[in-house]
Amino acid sequence: MHEGLSNRAHLQTYFLAARDLTLNLCQPLVYDDYLVQSASFVSPPKWHLGHTTWFFETFVLQPYCQGYESPNPKYRELFNSYYHSVDRPMSPAQRSLLTRPSLPEVLMYRDHVENALVEFLTHTVSAEALQWIELGIEHEEQHQELLLMDIKHIFHSCPLQPLYAHNLVPISSAHSLKLDFVEFAGGKQKIGYDGDLFSFDNERPAHFVDLRPFALANRLATNRDFLEFIDDGGYDDPDLWLSDGWEIKMRENWKAPLYWETGPDGPCSFTLRGPRRLVYDEPVCHLSYYEADAFARWAGARLPTESEWEAASATVLMDGSFLEAGSFHPSVPQDSHVPGAVSLSQMFGEVWQWTQSPYLSYPGYRRSAGALGEYNAKFMCNQFVLRGGSFGTPTTHIRPTYRNFYPPAARWQFAGLRLAKDIG
Amino acid sequence: MHEGLSNRAHLQTYFLAARDLTLNLCQPLVYDDYLVQSASFVSPPKWHLGHTTWFFETFVLQPYCQGYESPNPKYRELFNSYYHSVDRPMSPAQRSLLTRPSLPEVLMYRDHVENALVEFLTHTVSAEALQWIELGIEHEEQHQELLLMDIKHIFHSCPLQPLYAHNLVPISSAHSLKLDFVEFAGGKQKIGYDGDLFSFDNERPAHFVDLRPFALANRLATNRDFLEFIDDGGYDDPDLWLSDGWEIKMRENWKAPLYWETGPDGPCSFTLRGPRRLVYDEPVCHLSYYEADAFARWAGARLPTESEWEAASATVLMDGSFLEAGSFHPSVPQDSHVPGAVSLSQMFGEVWQWTQSPYLSYPGYRRSAGALGEYNAKFMCNQFVLRGGSFGTPTTHIRPTYRNFYPPAARWQFAGLRLAKDIG
Amino acid sequence: MHEGLSNRAHLQTYFLAARDLTLNLCQPLVYDDYLVQSASFVSPPKWHLGHTTWFFETFVLQPYCQGYESPNPKYRELFNSYYHSVDRPMSPAQRSLLTRPSLPEVLMYRDHVENALVEFLTHTVSAEALQWIELGIEHEEQHQELLLMDIKHIFHSCPLQPLYAHNLVPISSAHSLKLDFVEFAGGKQKIGYDGDLFSFDNERPAHFVDLRPFALANRLATNRDFLEFIDDGGYDDPDLWLSDGWEIKMRENWKAPLYWETGPDGPCSFTLRGPRRLVYDEPVCHLSYYEADAFARWAGARLPTESEWEAASATVLMDGSFLEAGSFHPSVPQDSHVPGAVSLSQMFGEVWQWTQSPYLSYPGYRRSAGALGEYNAKFMCNQFVLRGGSFGTPTTHIRPTYRNFYPPAARWQFAGLRLAKDIG
Amino acid sequence: MHEGLSNRAHLQTYFLAARDLTLNLCQPLVYDDYLVQSASFVSPPKWHLGHTTWFFETFVLQPYCQGYESPNPKYRELFNSYYHSVDRPMSPAQRSLLTRPSLPEVLMYRDHVENALVEFLTHTVSAEALQWIELGIEHEEQHQELLLMDIKHIFHSCPLQPLYAHNLVPISSAHSLKLDFVEFAGGKQKIGYDGDLFSFDNERPAHFVDLRPFALANRLATNRDFLEFIDDGGYDDPDLWLSDGWEIKMRENWKAPLYWETGPDGPCSFTLRGPRRLVYDEPVCHLSYYEADAFARWAGARLPTESEWEAASATVLMDGSFLEAGSFHPSVPQDSHVPGAVSLSQMFGEVWQWTQSPYLSYPGYRRSAGALGEYNAKFMCNQFVLRGGSFGTPTTHIRPTYRNFYPPAARWQFAGLRLAKDIG
Repeated sequence: MHEGLSNRAHLQTYFLAARDLTLNLCQPLVYDDYLVQSASFVSPPKWHLGHTTWFFETFVLQPYCQGYESPNPKYRELFNSYYHSVDRPMSPAQRSLLTRPSLPEVLMYRDHVENALVEFLTHTVSAEALQWIELGIEHEEQHQELLLMDIKHIFHSCPLQPLYAHNLVPISSAHSLKLDFVEFAGGKQKIGYDGDLFSFDNERPAHFVDLRPFALANRLATNRDFLEFIDDGGYDDPDLWLSDGWEIKMRENWKAPLYWETGPDGPCSFTLRGPRRLVYDEPVCHLSYYEADAFARWAGARLPTESEWEAASATVLMDGSFLEAGSFHPSVPQDSHVPGAVSLSQMFGEVWQWTQSPYLSYPGYRRSAGALGEYNAKFMCNQFVLRGGSFGTPTTHIRPTYRNFYPPAARWQFAGLRLAKDIG
Repeated sequence: MHEGLSNRAHLQTYFLAARDLTLNLCQPLVYDDYLVQSASFVSPPKWHLGHTTWFFETFVLQPYCQGYESPNPKYRELFNSYYHSVDRPMSPAQRSLLTRPSLPEVLMYRDHVENALVEFLTHTVSAEALQWIELGIEHEEQHQELLLMDIKHIFHSCPLQPLYAHNLVPISSAHSLKLDFVEFAGGKQKIGYDGDLFSFDNERPAHFVDLRPFALANRLATNRDFLEFIDDGGYDDPDLWLSDGWEIKMRENWKAPLYWETGPDGPCSFTLRGPRRLVYDEPVCHLSYYEADAFARWAGARLPTESEWEAASATVLMDGSFLEAGSFHPSVPQDSHVPGAVSLSQMFGEVWQWTQSPYLSYPGYRRSAGALGEYNAKFMCNQFVLRGGSFGTPTTHIRPTYRNFYPPAARWQFAGLRLAKDIG
Repeated sequence: MHEGLSNRAHLQTYFLAARDLTLNLCQPLVYDDYLVQSASFVSPPKWHLGHTTWFFETFVLQPYCQGYESPNPKYRELFNSYYHSVDRPMSPAQRSLLTRPSLPEVLMYRDHVENALVEFLTHTVSAEALQWIELGIEHEEQHQELLLMDIKHIFHSCPLQPLYAHNLVPISSAHSLKLDFVEFAGGKQKIGYDGDLFSFDNERPAHFVDLRPFALANRLATNRDFLEFIDDGGYDDPDLWLSDGWEIKMRENWKAPLYWETGPDGPCSFTLRGPRRLVYDEPVCHLSYYEADAFARWAGARLPTESEWEAASATVLMDGSFLEAGSFHPSVPQDSHVPGAVSLSQMFGEVWQWTQSPYLSYPGYRRSAGALGEYNAKFMCNQFVLRGGSFGTPTTHIRPTYRNFYPPAARWQFAGLRLAKDIG
Repeated sequence: MHEGLSNRAHLQTYFLAARDLTLNLCQPLVYDDYLVQSASFVSPPKWHLGHTTWFFETFVLQPYCQGYESPNPKYRELFNSYYHSVDRPMSPAQRSLLTRPSLPEVLMYRDHVENALVEFLTHTVSAEALQWIELGIEHEEQHQELLLMDIKHIFHSCPLQPLYAHNLVPISSAHSLKLDFVEFAGGKQKIGYDGDLFSFDNERPAHFVDLRPFALANRLATNRDFLEFIDDGGYDDPDLWLSDGWEIKMRENWKAPLYWETGPDGPCSFTLRGPRRLVYDEPVCHLSYYEADAFARWAGARLPTESEWEAASATVLMDGSFLEAGSFHPSVPQDSHVPGAVSLSQMFGEVWQWTQSPYLSYPGYRRSAGALGEYNAKFMCNQFVLRGGSFGTPTTHIRPTYRNFYPPAARWQFAGLRLAKDIG
């Protein structure tokens, strides 16, 4: 959470910190890694560097900073992701064609825009401009996680499969957490953000919902759980699957989560630290909604709604393992060691948690005009909400009310699940 | 509504009436029309005749009627739509390959199953079997509307474009209804079915929702309204569209609702009564969710939620123009002639009304095991709810709590919209 | 060969005989079989009936028969296959959409055109018109074989797999022919047609080619031969395949000729007489060019050129098993029983023989203007020549100079091969 | 032509010169340009650098040079283009995924292999190894032209459209050559290579063909000629086109040669020297076979056969503008200024000339076993022969008997045409 961003000195600090973190995430890359698009949904890292810069140039410097000059007016179109209100965006699948501007030119573009923005902040700045800067920082943070997701896909697609970070020491699974359910009474609950700090428009307006009694699992579903599902024929039983999910599973021949492989000594998965034997007690990751939903049905449970998740999350602290921890991988939950007590572990960080809630506007939501309205609202269809953040999410970016969203077939994001149940 | 279906004499009457209606709908077809599949989402009429029969054979006669013999055990696989719990279903896109059984053989199959079921009903029948028969009748009614949708698509795809029924007399538009909004206070409302008669599992359990104040348009959106949207560049303004909708609109080059064409004297549409100039005051039909949603945004309004629609529908009678009226086309709303009063016209019949509600289970819903669970639950993803029935829906089939659903890109169903607004 | 077709009485006889044979071939069909298009390259039998009629109407009656009236002028577009010089042809993949005209209407169209043409022949007819009638008869004969190919594909695609004709008695393979090669000296050979009777323009002009010494196999390649190729890994060894062939084999997962299956008692194939165990000494059928070419390479041989084939064919009589024999299947070659003599068996009939010759014009060929030029010339690209006719070719249709042609990946035609070798 | 390559000192000189030329061609690239694959048929320049190196390592050093060690044994698979006899080749469409080895690593790989080969040549080397080295040099030369083709496509695909070389001075068209035809008597002609120097196996064996009298245009078809074809509706008249060509033209919406655009001042094309107004008298370039064939038919002529082309080429010197000239673009033909004489201009260099000859083996050709047999023979299907070389072909690479080949729909190679006619 960005406290006091209306204070311009703080804002500059946050801005520069966010910009630095993006570049730091690129340290393990060689030049070639910046340019490839290993799938239509992946963007080349160079494009992320240009696009996050474009955001500040287009929405802050050009409208609010008199006398600002772009290093190249054509960047306005080249680095536009999907904002029709700005200019005709390039087709996302063609981003690898941008051999020019070259990587050094993009880095110079970053520098140019950063300097201009720091200089801009030394003057009196309108509240509106400040809001756009704040949004630009949040936008940069979102691309930090996307960058990590895309780098993982790019490294996996290269036959030589480079390492992003050094190998993990396998963790002893001695203290694995026994599955248990924590009960909640439900009732009238406030959902959504109504504080004074930053939040996305999709978290507002805060409103009340009536929840029936429910229970949430005390831990995330693990690789061990998911292997049981596989071994029990979970991928072969259409009765467990949504119709659309079964179809895509058949077409794409899914037999396990993305990045899983069968190694000579058992199941492995490709990680940002290279191929690695599955650690059974780690949270399962890289599931589509369809797989999470089928798993939950197989387990005799269901996915939580986002309201249930948000209400339950109020009972725990928002700690957890995020991007800055540098694990680049979900970790085994630690037992709380308090005898008799059952509580929710790993509600934040590690892996995003699929909910059964379609990504929709909250009651009373109004789509803003122009680019701001394009930021979130036009994706409110055919997507599902995920909650809690992951090992790839910057700490400053997450909130209990934060709503991430992906199409139900997407699997390259760091997504797992936590089981839920009706009670009473 | 099927009252007293537990009474077996009534049940037989309903059963035979439903079976007759299906065949009656096929009267305008020549043999060749029964066999074609003009798109992957269309089924040949012969297949509908076989599949609705298969449903009674598979779920009633085979499990409950001792000694029943199928005319051909292979039909079990051939006419299975999507029930994995029965047998491996054929790919829906390949239904036109079924040159055998021939049409006469399918008609004999219908006859055989009908006779067996009537005979079966002369004996003591378990409550479970009676429920399956009731479901089979409802299923037959659903296929009656599908049949009409598919016939329209087939006739339109044939270059000679045959008529299903004779030409309509153009209706004078003198009494067209001025658009107005009817206000509702919202508050706690009961949603879903809790009566004793038949309803689908997706209408249950009834539950309470809290609605904010809202208003619904007094009439359906008309062709005139939609032409204004088109003339105002509605199909060219990405700001009005959901992202997925814009993409499919571009890919499929949508410029108007399905079946619209530009005739020498202005806009026309293909109807079950042949090509015909647009009647401006008729409800607009054959819209995708994306078009309905973009139109509502353009109009400064929104689509209703299904809860709003259901709550508001309690203020009107469930009359309207359904399949039995034989219009095969939506009609111009009639003014109520009560000075000063504004009320909801055409809440039932004419065209299905898109809501903004994704098709999801109600709180507390439990998916049944086996085939019953496959009937509805496995489609609860990537679809939106439509309400109110259409000119293609049998009168006996509709209820205020009835939830129809289609993927947001589908346009061949008889679907239009009614605007809604927040108030207060 | 049509002798004396300039004699009008003979012409009428040939015309009516050809028209009758087409209908006779449809005897085993039920109504439903006439309407389906089981692949984009298959045409519904109803369409064949309409299109062959359209040919006479469009190229004979309309230009030459004063006062001729079509039963429906729209047929001109509906039944056009690919003649851009006539009108915009329908997309071939959409022929199943033609539910109207219905089958009875198409049969009445046939009758109407036949009567008009017979009446037309009672008058003085120009030589040009007579040539078009002759071409129309040849065209009808080509569609007779296509009809049989398409019916086989349609019957195979229907899960109930109907029989076209009754089961064959398995033939004893006692007298199977040992593979041997017949040598030819080559030298200057006349290729192409220069007689006075009908031939297609692609068989002309006759011209001389210089052939090097070569040898042809005394028999067609058999199922036994081809099983050896399969068992020896022929489908898994890229060294045997053309690059394009390997790619399509991988993409479509070919592991055997079209219509082959693994039955409980060994390899089977689907025939016009139903599924049937492979008879090892029958000629192998339903090969693509790629498979024929790979087989030949595996066998240490090659496919013949069309010139070699034509030169060699002069040494044998043009007898063989054609359509009129009603076998609907290739037969085991009979030994000639002449001790010591080796001769070419089954050079005509049974299965078309792939040659290594691309389908090109002969030197000095000139493409005719208009529809005549579209008949053959525009296909002279990406196709290969086949020679000799098959069990599906009408006897009157074949000649030693006859050039059939298919794209190298096509497999639904009745095509096999005969090995060739360089000698000397 | 490589004279005296059996002389090892010469061989080393040729080898190093070829390797240098490849790198020189990359001088105008920035790092980013090396890595992109702008279409499935394009390879990233980095891949060309690796693959041409791999060829020497795989076919010379590993089999013949004792003690040779590869910098990375995995390169054997990564840089294999299509040789199944070596190892499983990567899918060509996935070459951009090779972010590792990085560009510097690939350049070090080049250096390593070059040094090893130069050292290898200081020892006694078998004739077989020398032949492979020679083939490797020829292979490198082929990739030089491919590199230029691919760079042009990559530069054109980048929205900023960088220049490969500086702009050309527009050439005065004062001396444009009037179209005329040069006649040839035909008769028995020797075709193919039978000399002692290097040639590809597809140029052998030399053999005699009988040619009918023919005429060849004195110059290549020009942009002016092709604009007339376009203005006359050439792209809209199906009668001019081969059936397959018409289909792909419709599907891909061709309206002009590849890289042509409509500029504000008339037709332009993208060149290696940037976008540029069409120079009317330059040879037309970037045609598919289908376009060349349709143009020739429109012009009342035809494409030459490769035999005609080769026979005619004996009447002129093999000079012309090749890669080393550094024009990177075809040039306007110069009048010979010899009054009354008509001769063939630009038979070599400028643009490859499509012939009507499918790419097939010559009579008596035998495919070699292993990798050598994969070099050419497996592409002898669905391709057409082009002759004469282009501005992108190294001078040392071309011969009158040289046979280039492309699929008829390919347009990114430097291909135009010369008209031919029957005479007598």
